[in-house]
Amino acid sequence: MAKEKKMVEAITSMEEDFAQWYTDIVKKAELVEYSGIKGCMIIRPAGYAIWELIQKELDRRFKETGVENVYMPMFIPESLLNKEKDHVEGFAPEVAWVTHGGGEKLQERMCVRPTSETLFCDFYAKIIGSYRDLPKVYNQWCSVVRWEKTTRPFLRSMEFLWQEGHTAHATAEEAEARTIQMLNLYADFCEEVLAIPMVRGRKTDKEKFAGAEATYTIEALMHDGKALQSGTSHNFGDGFAKAFGIQYTDKDNKLQYVHQTSWGMTTRLIGAVIMVHGDNSGLVLPPAIAPIQAVIIPVRQDKEGVLDKAYELGNILKGFRVKVDDSDRSPGWKFAEHEMRGVPLRIEIGPKDIEAKQAVIARRDTGEKLTVSLDELEAKVGELLTTMQKEMLERARVHRDAHTYSATNMDEMLDVAENKSGFIKAMWCGDVACEEALKEKAGVTSRCMPFAQEEIAKTCVCCGKPAKTLVYWGKAY
Amino acid sequence: MAKEKKMVEAITSMEEDFAQWYTDIVKKAELVEYSGIKGCMIIRPAGYAIWELIQKELDRRFKETGVENVYMPMFIPESLLNKEKDHVEGFAPEVAWVTHGGGEKLQERMCVRPTSETLFCDFYAKIIGSYRDLPKVYNQWCSVVRWEKTTRPFLRSMEFLWQEGHTAHATAEEAEARTIQMLNLYADFCEEVLAIPMVRGRKTDKEKFAGAEATYTIEALMHDGKALQSGTSHNFGDGFAKAFGIQYTDKDNKLQYVHQTSWGMTTRLIGAVIMVHGDNSGLVLPPAIAPIQAVIIPVRQDKEGVLDKAYELGNILKGFRVKVDDSDRSPGWKFAEHEMRGVPLRIEIGPKDIEAKQAVIARRDTGEKLTVSLDELEAKVGELLTTMQKEMLERARVHRDAHTYSATNMDEMLDVAENKSGFIKAMWCGDVACEEALKEKAGVTSRCMPFAQEEIAKTCVCCGKPAKTLVYWGKAY
Repeated sequence: MAKEKKMVEAITSMEEDFAQWYTDIVKKAELVEYSGIKGCMIIRPAGYAIWELIQKELDRRFKETGVENVYMPMFIPESLLNKEKDHVEGFAPEVAWVTHGGGEKLQERMCVRPTSETLFCDFYAKIIGSYRDLPKVYNQWCSVVRWEKTTRPFLRSMEFLWQEGHTAHATAEEAEARTIQMLNLYADFCEEVLAIPMVRGRKTDKEKFAGAEATYTIEALMHDGKALQSGTSHNFGDGFAKAFGIQYTDKDNKLQYVHQTSWGMTTRLIGAVIMVHGDNSGLVLPPAIAPIQAVIIPVRQDKEGVLDKAYELGNILKGFRVKVDDSDRSPGWKFAEHEMRGVPLRIEIGPKDIEAKQAVIARRDTGEKLTVSLDELEAKVGELLTTMQKEMLERARVHRDAHTYSATNMDEMLDVAENKSGFIKAMWCGDVACEEALKEKAGVTSRCMPFAQEEIAKTCVCCGKPAKTLVYWGKAY
Repeated sequence: MAKEKKMVEAITSMEEDFAQWYTDIVKKAELVEYSGIKGCMIIRPAGYAIWELIQKELDRRFKETGVENVYMPMFIPESLLNKEKDHVEGFAPEVAWVTHGGGEKLQERMCVRPTSETLFCDFYAKIIGSYRDLPKVYNQWCSVVRWEKTTRPFLRSMEFLWQEGHTAHATAEEAEARTIQMLNLYADFCEEVLAIPMVRGRKTDKEKFAGAEATYTIEALMHDGKALQSGTSHNFGDGFAKAFGIQYTDKDNKLQYVHQTSWGMTTRLIGAVIMVHGDNSGLVLPPAIAPIQAVIIPVRQDKEGVLDKAYELGNILKGFRVKVDDSDRSPGWKFAEHEMRGVPLRIEIGPKDIEAKQAVIARRDTGEKLTVSLDELEAKVGELLTTMQKEMLERARVHRDAHTYSATNMDEMLDVAENKSGFIKAMWCGDVACEEALKEKAGVTSRCMPFAQEEIAKTCVCCGKPAKTLVYWGKAY
């Protein structure tokens, strides 16, 4: 019993050490186990089930916009990776190289895909010939490998799971529209499903994707005030098309280059869910992605009829993702365990409840407990899950807004960067030198130039020259 | 128009050249495109959508039996691969080695997983401590890499998609029961969903998986009389547990080794579907895994009201996977195109049909055409899809049975192997020398020792000594 108690107590408080709190949760909620390969994690059932729910809903939304799924090889020959100059410069330093196969040294080494632009371009060059073949709106769900020095489960790992969409269009306008469409789809998904509010905007040139003309991003604020880039959508223009020779004949029988986009979200989203919603009792999952939405815990399950009643409630609630915990642990252990795992609702049923034809429901996010007549249980559970989903988003929004600051000059910027943690809104002249100076002096990077622009000053926060745009700055994961 | 016509005609007949017919179909039905990496294929939307339907139904069946999904790293350090002697001997010659990462030579090279027994064992050694942690019934959906010299799309490729289940149990009996349970789940799935009848049985020691105590298999017969191993389920006993130190304390507080199983099915199943059901007009898909179950083709779509009616029918049939082909191709081109892609039902609607309040439905498998009143369209489509699914299995069974032969001595074996193509049932003494002799002389390998045993002779077909078991022999993909 001592060991059991310890299992659910040994979590560092987030105020004491946020990084350790995070690590404790991913381990104790059994989302992840470390593997023998440095920087690679094992995603355990409790973690993978969240990813499956994310995948399912995201894939459904993709397909509604005409996305088709494919699967590309995991290897990229070196000569193919080298075809687009900026792209190879961005990725070559962080790839893993396969040099031997089937007992022999390869004539040309291949990297494990860090991303698949080059493979899709090679493919599109083969299968696109006429305007009739456009657009191509393909996506794949797979894992990619990037050699990272410092890794953290979900946030940054050598191998991670993601989806990568790659499209080809007849016109620049259509490519830009798809880029923005997918960014908004990502943001809506994060808000509606993960209950995480997003700042939507464009990356500066310094922060954009290797080979892209423009990168758009959604940025979220974690509980500790650090930013997390949560999804990106890139417009490549016709740069890759020219490097790879992807051309089509238009209706006037003239050869044209296609315009391309790519966009991706990763298992990093699970890290965002942990760091936005979690508390000192563990994970708190938004109902929409909770593998178990309600756990039924029998109290005094040794008493005749209690377990049967618990199963009966499980049956009544079968329209939800529900579990009856009939294990031989104590109710107290089970309470703590399912709190740690972030199960949205706990339903307690004991002999006295059965007599009174009622059950006790506890909300994971607020701790609120209410007694519900069994006749109303199903309706109440549905209602509470809906409310909880909505309120979790609202609380995250309030937290984010309360941790969004402004700075109009360098003194203010340094003050906020040192004494607060959160987003810092400040004007920027557009010069990369100022971006670099802000990183060096204030330790912040540009998160994005938000779509929702404001003019909070006339001059650049760094150099004092006329400002071009509002930028969200911050410390980021 | 000439080019269009050619596109759907250029398919080799299966009687003329079965291998070329197969290759033609995978290309013309746009299931696959070759990539720049030898032996790696690109699975195109029409192919991947079939895989998604296979995954969805198989995963649903897995979860009903308590399977939980996880994700393991794609790399295996060499020292880990080396831990189980038989296993490394089986796989080391055909792996791809990563030797460099992040710009540096690795201290220890890692292979890309050819299968993940070693990773799961390492994981289980960490997380299993007590009888309470058992059983573990984990599965992952991923891709694996095996360095193959000769490759064919879906059937044998360097990288392929699959699922691999890995389980750990307290007792040998429980492990054996799970091994058989999953084999039967596979066979039922293939019969009920892919409409492919299976022979269920056990592999001989020569043919079993590297490191397994027993391998069970399901074997299907292709249209050309060759066999295809379609899924395998392995019982490892406690061999891996001893090599990796996977122990648990039982209820009496004694240390015990776990007993393990693994089981997998792959994208090879799509190859089986092609080679069992396809014909000289292209692919024929069983309705259960057809991405499009019915295609509505407007005839004279330039006439007012025709396209609208086609969309209206699409809406009536929205309970099925239905598509209205409103492209600017001719009806004839569309007929041939959707035949090539194996769409189970074609629904034609033209001005005369609209006047008569009817539509024409054509079945892809039999070519049968019938005229249906629009009032009955939805019911009829559902009925036809059910009938077609059932009849496709039945036809495949009749074909398989008609191509299953018997041999009681070596003369008969040589005669059948030379003059027929199909399964050959023959008795075997259990000696590997006879297995090797049969391969050398008759060109056949043992497919399995079927669960449904018969005694068709008293003596081994090869050596004439007393027979131990009936074996299915054949030429295999």
